[in-house]
Amino acid sequence: MHRLRKPYLLFLGDVKDNLTAKTAFGLKDWCPQDVVGEWSLPGCGVTLGLPRMTPQEAAARGAGSIMVGIAPTGGKLPPHWVAELVAAADAGLDVVSGLHTRLTSFPELVQAASRRGVRLIDVRHGERTYGAATGRKRSGKRVLTVGTDCALGKKYTALALAKNLKGRGISASFRATGQTGIMISGEGIAIDAVIADFIAGAAEQLSPDNNPAHWDVIEGQGSLYHPAYAGVTLGLLHGSQPDAIVLCHDPSRRTIDEYPEFPIPDLRVAIDDYLRAGRLTNRAIRCVGLSINSSSLSDTECDDYFRRLRAELDLPVCDPVRTGVDAIASALLEP
Amino acid sequence: MHRLRKPYLLFLGDVKDNLTAKTAFGLKDWCPQDVVGEWSLPGCGVTLGLPRMTPQEAAARGAGSIMVGIAPTGGKLPPHWVAELVAAADAGLDVVSGLHTRLTSFPELVQAASRRGVRLIDVRHGERTYGAATGRKRSGKRVLTVGTDCALGKKYTALALAKNLKGRGISASFRATGQTGIMISGEGIAIDAVIADFIAGAAEQLSPDNNPAHWDVIEGQGSLYHPAYAGVTLGLLHGSQPDAIVLCHDPSRRTIDEYPEFPIPDLRVAIDDYLRAGRLTNRAIRCVGLSINSSSLSDTECDDYFRRLRAELDLPVCDPVRTGVDAIASALLEP
Repeated sequence: MHRLRKPYLLFLGDVKDNLTAKTAFGLKDWCPQDVVGEWSLPGCGVTLGLPRMTPQEAAARGAGSIMVGIAPTGGKLPPHWVAELVAAADAGLDVVSGLHTRLTSFPELVQAASRRGVRLIDVRHGERTYGAATGRKRSGKRVLTVGTDCALGKKYTALALAKNLKGRGISASFRATGQTGIMISGEGIAIDAVIADFIAGAAEQLSPDNNPAHWDVIEGQGSLYHPAYAGVTLGLLHGSQPDAIVLCHDPSRRTIDEYPEFPIPDLRVAIDDYLRAGRLTNRAIRCVGLSINSSSLSDTECDDYFRRLRAELDLPVCDPVRTGVDAIASALLEP
Repeated sequence: MHRLRKPYLLFLGDVKDNLTAKTAFGLKDWCPQDVVGEWSLPGCGVTLGLPRMTPQEAAARGAGSIMVGIAPTGGKLPPHWVAELVAAADAGLDVVSGLHTRLTSFPELVQAASRRGVRLIDVRHGERTYGAATGRKRSGKRVLTVGTDCALGKKYTALALAKNLKGRGISASFRATGQTGIMISGEGIAIDAVIADFIAGAAEQLSPDNNPAHWDVIEGQGSLYHPAYAGVTLGLLHGSQPDAIVLCHDPSRRTIDEYPEFPIPDLRVAIDDYLRAGRLTNRAIRCVGLSINSSSLSDTECDDYFRRLRAELDLPVCDPVRTGVDAIASALLEP
């Protein structure tokens, strides 16, 4: 389990466009109270609109970590960023990265971290092995976001749902399973980086016993319909033992992203398949709503589409960005 | 992909009972032509009945590897075995282990291997990362053994089926996914040791494009009904893209081994679930038979049980040990 030291200084390197810095924007949007400022190299074309400060200044204001909130093509850390990260370590900040390149592959960074007693944390990589799942039923309640495909709003939906529940005064935790979610939450497990035998076991540890009324809102990964990642999805589903699922979907997709031979399933079939698989570890699992990424639809199209889905599936239908997730949260809290 | 150097010298350490040495017995049974002899420490209570020889003698007779064919409780390598493995490395043998303890955790063994230019191979551990699965349909034919539970004959069934096909003059390969299978085959991927994101990708590499008439007989792992390992099972199923499955089952089990809360599924349900999941990457998947571990049944009970299963499921029913797998192989080869 990764546990990060907040608050954060967000590092932008010298990226040129906002899309490449989407993790940094996500952090600013989802945990603004945990961000002290931004820092970048000469030539950077992006700003988050936050106070600009050096690692030393950020450390003086209490920052715990510098976050590499960038996803350059190929996931590699540009070597000319390293000197700035060394300076951050020297200033006493943990260095946190979601890139494929391991921070520990830069000897000067390892030396600086060791010298100053700070940590280098690669949230995309596993920290250690986990045990096999026990299947033991845990106390507390759990909801998992699942999807017809990858990358269509499972993290966003889980964040919105956890926020909505907290806004109602309900005890709830967002449980992160991917690098951006871990950075936002400050803790979590990169479930797709776990050794295959321990996927469900890691999911059990991510969401331990809790108060009977507490809700863990667990970020889903992958899709049962994805030819590469369905194993991760199933292990996460089994280990999470969710009482409820929310199915996330993007109506503009006809096939799995980057896998044009693989169709997106019918929504009724998808709900049934997820519930059937989830019953292995929680007989009472139910679907409490659909979270739709409707960015491709006009307001009129969206109204029509949502009305049709509600009638067909008899479930609340939301878009976390367009409508919020109030209807899903209400369904979740129905006995 | 692990690739081992045959033939083998089988090392028994100083174990006291045959069960702990079951991997060594499996190697003797399944690849006798690849085994030159056995070696053990003073106090060993087990013999395989093979010629006894030192690592030096084995090397002189052309042995390529010494195999630690032992599974002591906890999967740990007893430190007092290390000197003998150092001697084997010094004699020019690769050292191969299926234990949890990594061979590379013993500095004197690492030094010996480096000095002599031999390899230390931990078949339980992944050698490297794999790419994500592509979902691309491959040439050649594939059959995967699947199960209602773990440890009830998936490896044995796959070995028996590959042997039967070869005996008919058909081009066939056993594809190993666990440590014992890898030792027997001399190559394979420990699929449960792969990073979660790459389970299906590793399975694709295990069974690459082949001649249209060639059969890969793939060793299954875990079970869709296992609360800890179903993710591995599903990823292996998707990456294998099998044309056919054989369902393995032990009628004496009522619940998943060591998970008494989890029932063994009905066989019709299990066949349907595996076929439904497998259709994602191969629309033409079919079940060609049941492989039953019938060791708990008398001859009369077994006859009755098999007759009932054949009538209920309209499929060939075999026990690889009791009846051989001829009927399943014949069903596999029907167009």
